[in-house]
Amino acid sequence: MLSGPSGAGKNTVLNATMQLRDDLVYSVSATTRPRRPHEVDGVDYFFLSPETFQAKAREGEFLEWAEFCGYNYGTPRSFVTENLKKGYVVVMDVDIQGAKQIKRRMPDAVFTFLLPPTITELESRLRGRHTETDDAINRRMSAAYEELRVGIDYDYAVVNDQVDTAAQQLSSIITAEQCRVTRTDYFVLMQEILGKEGQQQ
Amino acid sequence: MLSGPSGAGKNTVLNATMQLRDDLVYSVSATTRPRRPHEVDGVDYFFLSPETFQAKAREGEFLEWAEFCGYNYGTPRSFVTENLKKGYVVVMDVDIQGAKQIKRRMPDAVFTFLLPPTITELESRLRGRHTETDDAINRRMSAAYEELRVGIDYDYAVVNDQVDTAAQQLSSIITAEQCRVTRTDYFVLMQEILGKEGQQQ
Repeated sequence: MLSGPSGAGKNTVLNATMQLRDDLVYSVSATTRPRRPHEVDGVDYFFLSPETFQAKAREGEFLEWAEFCGYNYGTPRSFVTENLKKGYVVVMDVDIQGAKQIKRRMPDAVFTFLLPPTITELESRLRGRHTETDDAINRRMSAAYEELRVGIDYDYAVVNDQVDTAAQQLSSIITAEQCRVTRTDYFVLMQEILGKEGQQQ
Repeated sequence: MLSGPSGAGKNTVLNATMQLRDDLVYSVSATTRPRRPHEVDGVDYFFLSPETFQAKAREGEFLEWAEFCGYNYGTPRSFVTENLKKGYVVVMDVDIQGAKQIKRRMPDAVFTFLLPPTITELESRLRGRHTETDDAINRRMSAAYEELRVGIDYDYAVVNDQVDTAAQQLSSIITAEQCRVTRTDYFVLMQEILGKEGQQQ
């Protein structure tokens, strides 16, 4: 799950990361918004009627969903789980509320917060020897801070200073999480043997 | 911290990983073993007298230490912390007992278990349709399993099937852990601002 304030460059970094590896699948959202001429059902979105969307929401089919400008948007659980079963890594761009919903329903999901390069400006301003009498700067810094502070509850933080570096870091996070011991075939195998030993005793 | 059964290829993988990045420092151990002619103090080991070693051990200078063939070997805390302060990543090859000692003294340390390619053989044998009457195979598998099971308590597991791939994975683990939110400058900055807010209220 990749979140971040607007302007952080989530899509650019996700696209660059998908160029680096062939095991990523971008999560296709469902929506009740009408399909635009150039859009393809199942590629850009799964286009659903409001009734179907509501029925699926009741069945718990959405890992997260929200209303936006009068239309519903949701992350279909079946698309995600089917691709995970095939061995793919499913990546998605979710907002903070969506990330919280997904965290509850998929505690195993990994959350990365993408920081805009302005974090560096924010840091130098706050750490610099400013007289701090400039209210405009303070207000701007304060607003930036509010957008950024939510990221401290995420697993990882990546600064999008250079798209290539940020994509490399995101790819490293994915590789590392694939090596996390509880996700490995090795771990499953050891648990199976432990289970057999337990039965024999 | 990299651990693994003998024959897993820890040194080979660590050396290959150090070729991939310039921010790694290999932890130099202290020992009471006499220096051999080709060895350099401070490079191969810190060569200490038994008295100095004991004094340092009492002062808590070793992150872990053990006796081996009548000589003491230990990981100097000062070498590790000084290099971490300079921004380096300190890597070391430690056995399972050493890893446990370090975990207590440096809870922030990251532990990776390196698996020999024989894990694949172990898996196919155990999963395969063998009659399991061959006691020799069973004994060998059982011994391999004992050496391997300790790894399930580590953070990450890497299979050394191909040295290059294993080194890439180890490097990804390091990069990912550098992006772990609590280790970032961003997190420190957010905590500082939160602290200031707390004082103002």
